[in-house]
Amino acid sequence: MLFFALGACQPTGEANDKTAETAGEKESVKPAYAIVIHGGAGTITRSMMTAEMEAEYRATLNAALDIGEGVLAQGGSALDAVEQTIRSLEDSPLFNAGKGAVFTHEGKNELDAAIMMGSNLAAGSIGGVTTVRNPISLARAVMEKSPHVMMAGPGAEEFAKEQGLEIVSPDYFFTQKRFDALQKAIQEEKEKQPMGYTGENRDYKFGTVGCVALDKAGHIVAGTSTGGMTNKRYNRIGDAPIIGAGTYANDATCGISCTGHGEFFIRYTVAHDVSALMEYQGLSLQEAADKVVMDKLVKAGGEGGLVALDRQGNIAMPFNSEGMYRGYARPGERVVEIYKDEKN
Amino acid sequence: MLFFALGACQPTGEANDKTAETAGEKESVKPAYAIVIHGGAGTITRSMMTAEMEAEYRATLNAALDIGEGVLAQGGSALDAVEQTIRSLEDSPLFNAGKGAVFTHEGKNELDAAIMMGSNLAAGSIGGVTTVRNPISLARAVMEKSPHVMMAGPGAEEFAKEQGLEIVSPDYFFTQKRFDALQKAIQEEKEKQPMGYTGENRDYKFGTVGCVALDKAGHIVAGTSTGGMTNKRYNRIGDAPIIGAGTYANDATCGISCTGHGEFFIRYTVAHDVSALMEYQGLSLQEAADKVVMDKLVKAGGEGGLVALDRQGNIAMPFNSEGMYRGYARPGERVVEIYKDEKN
Repeated sequence: MLFFALGACQPTGEANDKTAETAGEKESVKPAYAIVIHGGAGTITRSMMTAEMEAEYRATLNAALDIGEGVLAQGGSALDAVEQTIRSLEDSPLFNAGKGAVFTHEGKNELDAAIMMGSNLAAGSIGGVTTVRNPISLARAVMEKSPHVMMAGPGAEEFAKEQGLEIVSPDYFFTQKRFDALQKAIQEEKEKQPMGYTGENRDYKFGTVGCVALDKAGHIVAGTSTGGMTNKRYNRIGDAPIIGAGTYANDATCGISCTGHGEFFIRYTVAHDVSALMEYQGLSLQEAADKVVMDKLVKAGGEGGLVALDRQGNIAMPFNSEGMYRGYARPGERVVEIYKDEKN
Repeated sequence: MLFFALGACQPTGEANDKTAETAGEKESVKPAYAIVIHGGAGTITRSMMTAEMEAEYRATLNAALDIGEGVLAQGGSALDAVEQTIRSLEDSPLFNAGKGAVFTHEGKNELDAAIMMGSNLAAGSIGGVTTVRNPISLARAVMEKSPHVMMAGPGAEEFAKEQGLEIVSPDYFFTQKRFDALQKAIQEEKEKQPMGYTGENRDYKFGTVGCVALDKAGHIVAGTSTGGMTNKRYNRIGDAPIIGAGTYANDATCGISCTGHGEFFIRYTVAHDVSALMEYQGLSLQEAADKVVMDKLVKAGGEGGLVALDRQGNIAMPFNSEGMYRGYARPGERVVEIYKDEKN
């Protein structure tokens, strides 16, 4: 395996001092920590945002990074950092995950989530739960407390209860903004596609939250949580809980959390493809992530983006949509961005 | 991309005549058809088989190949060949899919399936249905008639009804053999793990059926269908319906259907990894399949196998368990095998 450290976002400070490494030798130095998050990609432009809304989004992303960075700076695990960071994003009504999740066609909130550890490829994932306050914690419980990787619907909720996770009434997930979005989607569907559902209402269906962290021990963990698509039907499951599609981590390559039109991310096995391009073709993280998001997905018409980091602490946040709520932290370094023109 | 044709199972006859190709040139000749199937991997040894049982398994595998080969020889699509071949295996009580599916802990039969087309990476998948006679046909309907890739549980069943698929009473899936296996599993669990479920009853949980076909137009399709693990809980979803894990197809590389301890196949993104090793490292189909099944999975402790074919009609059927029900057909060639010592 070949590793390059040529990504556009080089680690600074502590990271640069510690990642010197001779190819083929066993690593003896610990890389500095790094953490990267997203709050969904889509049609996010300055024209649709008030100064107040923008400030709120940036503050919530910064607060989430504070939580994860706090864990990592104190020598905590990437697993704890990812879980706690995503819990804070799930608890915010701003993002399509946990509180703030979009509504299904039937007016329910069905939540998907996954978490994966790069050190041993352990993974946990859940699809279609309606009463678990923090789906990312349930995904972690599936990984740690069951012999399974993936559980769905009522079975996953039964497991959540047995594990003592916080159960809430489905009403907990109600937000007026998301409910109004559903009504708009249903109305548009009636006007545009009176004969059936085609799901082509693109503007409001790409929300997701995700986090990837590298801890001081050199381990990478990735997690993703989402309410899926507004107006989704038939217990649709998206890419977020599909290991290798929306979520993947491998200490040998990178950790990845995706957001976008999930069906494309499943069909293109996006997260594992980025890892495979690094492992088998020797691409850098940035090169691999750009190849998949800005080339393969663009050609296919698959809108969205991803956040990723490698074991040297390099970070990539490519997206092919108008905007993506995103940010990262490394020792002495903090970035929070929303629009395309902020893209570095 | 590099392609080698050095697999252990070279196409013969018509296939050899037509696959001459200059690297980099657009293919102008159509490859011959090929089809490969499996009926599950696991502890399958001569000592546990009567002559009568063995003859029945071989006859059913041959009959399934007859169906798929019939479609392909007449110029039919790989999609039709895979669907019809898997339907015949689902309808047989011998295999853990459709009629013959294993029981969940609660005494139900929950079925998973997926299908994927190599020509455009279209895919359809379903998890946890209990009333659809042929899950592979529902996976195809999800791919062709919905904007989604994956549906689960009651939503998937509602979609099946709307699409006019054959709905059966859950009783349809009852077989005494599988019900007895559940009782045995529950008993063993009580004796060995009185404090909880660890899922370590390995001998009876690796059943799956799968098929990959290459049609005369050069298109590859892969499909997988399963009842999952005996005594599974919590609406567990295995690798079969996870695109990139248990099922994957890409005309540029290969088509793959897996069978085995599904959690490992998800974590190792087995099907997409085989494809990535071909696409990014230039490995042959056999080399890539062996690398994943006989090296990576063995090191991880992940038992099982897969069947695969590439666009030249090369076939690979590696497995690291005691046996795997398997077979393939190409013009003038037919192989059906069960045990390890038959492995070519």
